[in-house]
Amino acid sequence: MTERSSGRRVTLTEVAERAGVSRSAASFALNGRLDQRLSVETMARVRRAADELGYRANVTAKTLRTGRSGTVALVSDFVSSTSFANSMVRGALERLREAGLLLFTVDTQGDAEMERRFLDDLVARDIDGILYASMFTRRVMPPASARHTALVLMNCEADDAAISSVVPDERAAGATAARLLQEAGHDRDIWFVGTLAPGRTGGSAWHEWGPVALPRRLEGIRAQLAAAGTQLAGEVAVDDDWTVHDGRHAAERLLASGARPRAVICVNDAVGVGVFQALRRAGLRVPDDVSLVSFDGGVLAEATDPQLVSLRLPQAEIGRRAADLLLSPDEGTRHELVEMPVSGGGTIATPRA
Amino acid sequence: MTERSSGRRVTLTEVAERAGVSRSAASFALNGRLDQRLSVETMARVRRAADELGYRANVTAKTLRTGRSGTVALVSDFVSSTSFANSMVRGALERLREAGLLLFTVDTQGDAEMERRFLDDLVARDIDGILYASMFTRRVMPPASARHTALVLMNCEADDAAISSVVPDERAAGATAARLLQEAGHDRDIWFVGTLAPGRTGGSAWHEWGPVALPRRLEGIRAQLAAAGTQLAGEVAVDDDWTVHDGRHAAERLLASGARPRAVICVNDAVGVGVFQALRRAGLRVPDDVSLVSFDGGVLAEATDPQLVSLRLPQAEIGRRAADLLLSPDEGTRHELVEMPVSGGGTIATPRA
Repeated sequence: MTERSSGRRVTLTEVAERAGVSRSAASFALNGRLDQRLSVETMARVRRAADELGYRANVTAKTLRTGRSGTVALVSDFVSSTSFANSMVRGALERLREAGLLLFTVDTQGDAEMERRFLDDLVARDIDGILYASMFTRRVMPPASARHTALVLMNCEADDAAISSVVPDERAAGATAARLLQEAGHDRDIWFVGTLAPGRTGGSAWHEWGPVALPRRLEGIRAQLAAAGTQLAGEVAVDDDWTVHDGRHAAERLLASGARPRAVICVNDAVGVGVFQALRRAGLRVPDDVSLVSFDGGVLAEATDPQLVSLRLPQAEIGRRAADLLLSPDEGTRHELVEMPVSGGGTIATPRA
Repeated sequence: MTERSSGRRVTLTEVAERAGVSRSAASFALNGRLDQRLSVETMARVRRAADELGYRANVTAKTLRTGRSGTVALVSDFVSSTSFANSMVRGALERLREAGLLLFTVDTQGDAEMERRFLDDLVARDIDGILYASMFTRRVMPPASARHTALVLMNCEADDAAISSVVPDERAAGATAARLLQEAGHDRDIWFVGTLAPGRTGGSAWHEWGPVALPRRLEGIRAQLAAAGTQLAGEVAVDDDWTVHDGRHAAERLLASGARPRAVICVNDAVGVGVFQALRRAGLRVPDDVSLVSFDGGVLAEATDPQLVSLRLPQAEIGRRAADLLLSPDEGTRHELVEMPVSGGGTIATPRA
């Protein structure tokens, strides 16, 4: 309980007076209510007044009274505890911050029991909304308790179409990868590296989850090539996972088979780096002899020289859009696809005659 | 309020009876009290009994009553919303999970006002403990409100020696980097790439924070070389940041100056990848012509061929140890250094005569 030097506790009415707003507007601003539409300026003015006066609510007591806590939770499998999709947290954090809301992040490590405990705890704490996220794009079944509050799916989709979701547009990205090669003049000997052996999901920690990125990227690639009257020369599976090592080994097997690719589309950047290394070891130059394009657009895409052309996962945008949907419940259920833009450059060239 | 089919709410006493423990032990287990030492097996048995019976506490009401919420918060600048130090979250999460505690993560983006709001909110919610973390190792001044609960610094240190902290042993890692080169026979023409121009801190988002990794790594390197009667041939600053691009440019400037390094110690993996690219562009082979060693041991260290030798930041271990300290307040204040192990391999060779 913060007190002023007088020993008397500052009241909400005093904050409202100083900010020149009604008491209820001050309450809305300080509670960060999702269903209110105070301007950013008004929210900021109220918060400044509260800070200047040293106003501090007892959050637990306030929560019991109002059922509003001014906080949103991002509940995911591995988003905040691994290095892959953290920009989603940043995007959501920044958008919610603009609206005066705090974001708590929890990782369940894919443990259903842990997820249930977290959600029970959050719902019992009267959290204002939940962003339910996955590290990689997949179908999910959010537990019933997550429905007790505003809910938006971030980088995942549910069978229940009534839940809003935001995912990357993987099909369009697949088509773009193929189109970039076509525009450079590639019309044959285009290979795909990174399919998975039956039962594999592209990551040892991912339980039995099936990532949707792979089939959608392939679908986009195939459709784009077919529209130009061509097709993939073939698809190469990785031994186990989408890593640099497995990508290199897959490309080594491809070259050992006698195939002479003119272009390779790689399932992700790590596989792209591995394919790059295998080509170089075989004395082939990128992009003069073989063009390369991958997906993710992460830090690994910068590690090759020249830099990998990659379709970037728009994680910050996904986080931002998911927070937007949570802040706009009146807009109803939405299923949004976010464009994957082209990043990097230097690994695509016109094939030699 | 979860109810059984009978419509009657399950009591704590029933949970205790089913688990074969006292009511207070059941309460401790379900509240995840930090100062109690129930065995992991007992905690698990109580939780299983609670699950089987469908016991669920009203967390907000419980918090008001007991002042214990069974939750710990990891409060940081950028740890969960960027891709650099997430393994710290994983390490802490796994250790706390073993103790039956939930971990909430919040990123303040280095904003003091946001940090104050988060901490006020957390303290008002009677959080059991705070892991105060930084994305890169630096000195911090935790706000006063963080002191109202158990507090351990993770990957950062405070001037106030009364606060426990866990950081990587950067000096020892610097010494190890130099020793690895010495053991391969390097005794001259060893350069360091990655010092910072005055006023630079190694990252545009890092406000005015001074990272402590750079001076400590250099201190360890210099001491190890001096013990063998030698010293660095020179130090090269990066233009702006510790990136692949800036590392490459720094190495290009070094080579253009006429210097002929036989070994380069790089401040981090990104700079190491950039130096690797510059050497290759200049027709120099790694490690035959020039040996390379870097720090971080992250995903980028796998992107060169051969793989970079790198002193790995022990993030998961730091997270785990910080959680350990939080769980063991009776051990008093501790300042722990965690070893940075050697990772990768292939970029160090005996220099040619």
